[in-house]
Amino acid sequence: MSRKLIVVGGIAAGLSAASKAKRLIHDLEVTVYEKSGFASTGACGLPYLAGGTVPRARDLLSLTIEDLGDKRGISVLTEHEVTEVNPKEKIVRVRETQSGKELTDTYDYLVLATGASPIRPALRNLGADGVFFLRTLEDGISLRKAVEKGAKRAVILGGGMIGLETAEQLSEAGLEVILVESMPRLMPMLEADYSEIIRQELTQHGVAVLPGERAEEILEKNGKVSGLRLCNGKELQADIILISTGVTPNTSLARQCGLALGVRDSIAVDSSMRTSIPSIWACGDCVQSYHMITGQPCWMPSGTTANKQGRTAGSDIGGESAVFRGVLGTQVTKIFGLYAAMTGLNLEKALEAGFDATSVSIVKGDKASYYPGSIDSHVTFVFERKGGRLLGAQVLGGISAAGRCNTLVAAISAEMTIAEINSLDFAYSPSVAPVYDPILIAAAQAGRQVL
Amino acid sequence: MSRKLIVVGGIAAGLSAASKAKRLIHDLEVTVYEKSGFASTGACGLPYLAGGTVPRARDLLSLTIEDLGDKRGISVLTEHEVTEVNPKEKIVRVRETQSGKELTDTYDYLVLATGASPIRPALRNLGADGVFFLRTLEDGISLRKAVEKGAKRAVILGGGMIGLETAEQLSEAGLEVILVESMPRLMPMLEADYSEIIRQELTQHGVAVLPGERAEEILEKNGKVSGLRLCNGKELQADIILISTGVTPNTSLARQCGLALGVRDSIAVDSSMRTSIPSIWACGDCVQSYHMITGQPCWMPSGTTANKQGRTAGSDIGGESAVFRGVLGTQVTKIFGLYAAMTGLNLEKALEAGFDATSVSIVKGDKASYYPGSIDSHVTFVFERKGGRLLGAQVLGGISAAGRCNTLVAAISAEMTIAEINSLDFAYSPSVAPVYDPILIAAAQAGRQVL
Repeated sequence: MSRKLIVVGGIAAGLSAASKAKRLIHDLEVTVYEKSGFASTGACGLPYLAGGTVPRARDLLSLTIEDLGDKRGISVLTEHEVTEVNPKEKIVRVRETQSGKELTDTYDYLVLATGASPIRPALRNLGADGVFFLRTLEDGISLRKAVEKGAKRAVILGGGMIGLETAEQLSEAGLEVILVESMPRLMPMLEADYSEIIRQELTQHGVAVLPGERAEEILEKNGKVSGLRLCNGKELQADIILISTGVTPNTSLARQCGLALGVRDSIAVDSSMRTSIPSIWACGDCVQSYHMITGQPCWMPSGTTANKQGRTAGSDIGGESAVFRGVLGTQVTKIFGLYAAMTGLNLEKALEAGFDATSVSIVKGDKASYYPGSIDSHVTFVFERKGGRLLGAQVLGGISAAGRCNTLVAAISAEMTIAEINSLDFAYSPSVAPVYDPILIAAAQAGRQVL
Repeated sequence: MSRKLIVVGGIAAGLSAASKAKRLIHDLEVTVYEKSGFASTGACGLPYLAGGTVPRARDLLSLTIEDLGDKRGISVLTEHEVTEVNPKEKIVRVRETQSGKELTDTYDYLVLATGASPIRPALRNLGADGVFFLRTLEDGISLRKAVEKGAKRAVILGGGMIGLETAEQLSEAGLEVILVESMPRLMPMLEADYSEIIRQELTQHGVAVLPGERAEEILEKNGKVSGLRLCNGKELQADIILISTGVTPNTSLARQCGLALGVRDSIAVDSSMRTSIPSIWACGDCVQSYHMITGQPCWMPSGTTANKQGRTAGSDIGGESAVFRGVLGTQVTKIFGLYAAMTGLNLEKALEAGFDATSVSIVKGDKASYYPGSIDSHVTFVFERKGGRLLGAQVLGGISAAGRCNTLVAAISAEMTIAEINSLDFAYSPSVAPVYDPILIAAAQAGRQVL
C-alpha cells in the first residue's frame, strides 16, 4: 500500500516539500491543505501587485493547482484549514473554510509549513474598511482594489521590507504616502548613514517619513478609515492604512500537538527539518533556523529559505540525505532607485555575539568614474580585528548592490579573511565596476585595521 | 642619503608601485618615466572615448601629473622612453621622445611596468591613414577624431573585448560596423551557445559579424584606407580599420638586461613581483602570473591585476610583506544590452589541466518572473565530477551577470563545492532575483552530476 504525505500549507515551503518527496517516492500519495484560497503564491510580489507593477493576481501564482496535480501528482486543496493534529494516531482534522464542513485524514508523514502572519497591533478600529495587511494573495488583491477605486492617501505603519516596498509602489501609483516607523530610524540594522540615505530616497520621491512615531488610534468614519492618530497627538489623514509591523510564526497547530518550540515560538527543527515528534517535519516561515556565523538559533523567515527548507524536508522524507545549513540573514530591498542589501552580522550583533569586531565603511562609484551612470556604492564590512575574518556586510547603491552583497555572502560563508577578499580576481570593465571594485576598496581599508 | 626608485611606465601598475613605495618610504625619491604623452590613463576606457560615451580624453586620466607630484611626491616624466637598463651599475638610459635628447639616471630600486602592445598583423598598408590600434590615449584620441571627422564605415579586426566594445561604441556613434574575427566564433572561451547570443546581440544592433574570416590586405587610395580584402577575396569598404587582434607583453628592456622570461615571453616574477635580477621588480601587463586553479604560469593581463601587482611591488620595495595571489582569468564585457562574464576554467581548459570535470548550463530570469524587466541569465558551471569543486563559471545576461560572476569568483577562490554553493544564503527580492537565484538553479542542476 502506498504511503501518505500530508502537507499543511501550500506556499513556498509546503509545495517544495511535497514536490521533492513525490519525486523521490513515486507512489507517495501527497495531499496539501492550504487555508487560503490560493496555493503557490509568490508572496514577496504582493507590494508589486498592490501598486500595479504586477498587472494580474494570477501572475503571482508560479504553478496552478491543475499543474500541481497533473505534472507533479500532488493534490492541493485550498480553503482547507488543518485544525488539529493527532500525532499518536497520525490523523489530522480539516475544516473546509467556506462550508465549515469537517473531515479527517491520515498520514504516514506530516509536514507543517504553516508560515507566518502579520502582527496585529493593539489599535482601535483595526477592523475598519481601509485597514490592510499584506501577507496573502487575498490581502494583495484587496489593497490593489482599494488603489483602483481611487484611494488618495496611504499611511504605512512599519518600515520593514514590506512597508518600504509598498511605500514605493503606492507612491508610484499616485497616492500620497506617509511611512510611520516606531524606531528612531529606518532599517536600524543598517549603518545610521544608510538609514538616512534611504529616508532621503523616499522623501525625494514624495514619501513622507515619520521615524520614531507610534500609532495611537485608527480613525474611522462610518466604518471606513479616515486617518491615524499618532501618540504625539498628530492626526494623519488616510483612506488606506497598511499595517506592516512585522510577522510572527504560525504555530498554533505545533503547540496543539506538542512540538518543541524555539526562538520567538518558531518550531524547533534539526538540520533535516525534523521536529521533536517522529513523522512530523516543519519548514518555512514557521520554523527556527541556525545562524551560520554565531551558530545560535534564530528566526529569520525568507522566501528562498522557505523553498530550501521545504526541499530539505522533502528529501529527508524521500530517504535522500539533505541538510539545511542555516542562514546568514541576507536581505535586499529596492526603494525607488536605491537597493539596500545586507548579510551576516552588523557591528552591534557581532559585538553582542562576543566577537572582537570592528567595521569600516567606504563609498565608491559602481562603474569607472568616467563611465556614464555610475552610482555611489556604499559598502560596510564588519570583521574580526584579529585575523580579519569577515562577519557581515552591508551594500547600498544601485542594482549592483545585490550582486556585491552575494559576493560577500560567499566570502563570509567560506570564512574568508579581509586579506583573502582583497586577493579576489573580480570582473572588471568600466561599465560594471571601477578598476578597484568597491569590495576591494573596502577590503583595502579594512586591511589597515586587521591585527 | 635618500634612496631612488625608478619606475618605467606611468599607467596602472607603474603608478601603483610608485605610490605605494613612496607611502611606505617617505624620503624615497621616485621618478616615473612614461614613453607616451600621458600618465595615469584608464586604458580600458578607450573604446568609450572613441565612441564619444566618454566626452573628453582628460576624463580618462585618473590623476594629473601635477597631482602625482604635489599630493604623492612622485615625479612623472612623460615622453621619456627608457631605452636601456644596466643592472650592474643600476643605471638607466632615457630618451626624450620629442627632442631625441638622451640622459642617464641611477636607481636603488627599479620597477618595470612596461605594459603590452597591440599585435601588428603582417598586412600591407598597415601605415595607411585610417588604420587604428587602441592601446594608448593617443590612439583613442586619434580614433575619436576620425569619427568626428565623419567616418562612415568601420571594419574591426578581432573580436576580443576591445574589438567588441569598440564595435558597440562606433555603431552607437552612427557608423556602419563590420567585425571580422578569424576564429570560427566570437569569444571562443565561452560556451558555443553564448558566442551565438553575442553574435545575435551585435547583429540586432546593426553590427555585421564575419566569423572565421581572415584579412588579406588593407586597401588604400592615396595613403588613405579605402577598405579591407579578406582571404576569401571579398572586399569590405571602410574609412576606418581598427586592429584589435590581441596584445603582446613589452619586454624588450627586460630582454636587454637579461631578466628571465616566461609564458609568451612575459617577465617571470615571484609573488612579490621580484624579477630574476635583484633590485628589479616588474608588474602589470608585461609580467607572468599564476593561475589560482591550475597553479600554472599564465599571462592574463587586466587593469585590476596591474593595479594589484603594482601595489604589491611597491609594498615589497617599502619593506611591507605583500603577496599577489594569482589570477582566475576573470573577465567581463558589455555588448549593447548584453554582459558576458567568465572566471576560472572552461570545460576544455579544465580537462586539459587534468581535472575530471564536467559542466552544466542553465537559463533563468534575473528577476522574479512576474517582475518587469527580467532578463535571461545564462549560467554555466564547470566542476569536478567527484566532490563537485567548482572550477569555472560563465554568466551571460543583463548587468547582474557581473555580480553573479564575482559571487562565483569568491566561491571558486574558496574552493567551494557545488553543495556548498547550493547552501549559500543569497539576497532575494523580486526586483533582483527569482526566489532561487540562477546560481542556485545551476548548483541544483550540477548537484545531480556530482559523484
